[in-house]
Amino acid sequence: LKPYLIIVAGGTGKRMQSDIPKQFLPVKNKAILQHTIDVFVAYNPDIQIVLVLSELYHKLWRTISQENNYYTEYQIIKGGKERFFSVKNALDCIPPDCIVGVHDAVRPCVSKETITRAYASARRHGNGIPVVPVRESLREITNQTSKAVDRNKFVSVQTPQCFKSDILKKAYTQEFQPSFTDDASVVQAAGYKIHTVKGNIENIKITEPSDLLIAEIFLP
Amino acid sequence: LKPYLIIVAGGTGKRMQSDIPKQFLPVKNKAILQHTIDVFVAYNPDIQIVLVLSELYHKLWRTISQENNYYTEYQIIKGGKERFFSVKNALDCIPPDCIVGVHDAVRPCVSKETITRAYASARRHGNGIPVVPVRESLREITNQTSKAVDRNKFVSVQTPQCFKSDILKKAYTQEFQPSFTDDASVVQAAGYKIHTVKGNIENIKITEPSDLLIAEIFLP
Repeated sequence: LKPYLIIVAGGTGKRMQSDIPKQFLPVKNKAILQHTIDVFVAYNPDIQIVLVLSELYHKLWRTISQENNYYTEYQIIKGGKERFFSVKNALDCIPPDCIVGVHDAVRPCVSKETITRAYASARRHGNGIPVVPVRESLREITNQTSKAVDRNKFVSVQTPQCFKSDILKKAYTQEFQPSFTDDASVVQAAGYKIHTVKGNIENIKITEPSDLLIAEIFLP
Repeated sequence: LKPYLIIVAGGTGKRMQSDIPKQFLPVKNKAILQHTIDVFVAYNPDIQIVLVLSELYHKLWRTISQENNYYTEYQIIKGGKERFFSVKNALDCIPPDCIVGVHDAVRPCVSKETITRAYASARRHGNGIPVVPVRESLREITNQTSKAVDRNKFVSVQTPQCFKSDILKKAYTQEFQPSFTDDASVVQAAGYKIHTVKGNIENIKITEPSDLLIAEIFLP
């Protein structure tokens, strides 16, 4: 089954106190988004990529790509109002009978090994979701107070979340719910059992300005 | 109420692939443990510190301190088998009617503001526990599978966890339970309501080698 990849680039740069959306910011002389694209191409040079990007930024990204000689070819489509609708749009570009991963543009530090495990699990079990242990103690917020919970019962979820495309397409015919925070939650709500695989702790989601410096440590 | 601080330095360096325990490793030309001590002294120069350290390392730490002209004065006592017993030992050195914080030696990036909020909450409410939002999606591991949970219902717990000393002493008369992963869980089990305060996201616990590089970004 051929591998496809949907990259979701939702950010608009507000939290990064920058006019440039964070996925376009350079780390080690390369835009974060291009780091992300490159690691998937290194995993499999034949992977077919669909980039979901706010229409506002299509021109800016093409300019950045040209100026920096980013040659990778892929389809660019426009984003939806919520992540859910962005992925739903992108799924229209994905054929049946393939394996499709969905990855956050701002996770450039994903390892080739994590990608390999997630796609392999999707081939075998229908889905593969990379997770890592929760590193800090957790408390659950309840009415007015909070209670300690056993962090060993929880895992932190990363991307790429990979699926047989028919399963993901079927799951995305459901009505949107606010509890759909990632693709695994959508697929689980459609009645499928979720299979987790080992992620890599460097695979952080770049959201804060300091995350750029952390990503610099982890990126090649 | 006078401020006291228990610093728990449990590490033995195994995970850091180093013969030197991680709390002694230098970041920006200063041992992690000394960074930690310095930020509390900057918060309040009169704070009384009890350092809990494996007996194996008392001599090494005194040597490092002398060679590097670390002049801060404090008591050093030996650690217990579990963190619980280390804190319990240290509490014997803490007087009644004071405010006591318990802090991980390997959290040198705690901000003065976080420390101030935790001690102030302990003065007012009996305890103050710094927390930050959970940044990644969470899944709860159940028999054979896992389910999505709403991460907005959870917070990540940091230190210093601060208490009226009488409350903490009383809580530590309980029998040890494996669910006692931090001081808040011990105090909660003794029947007290936990009060959370805002932590700071830089306040990471240094456990992995890459955390040293991240701490370098955050430390002064």
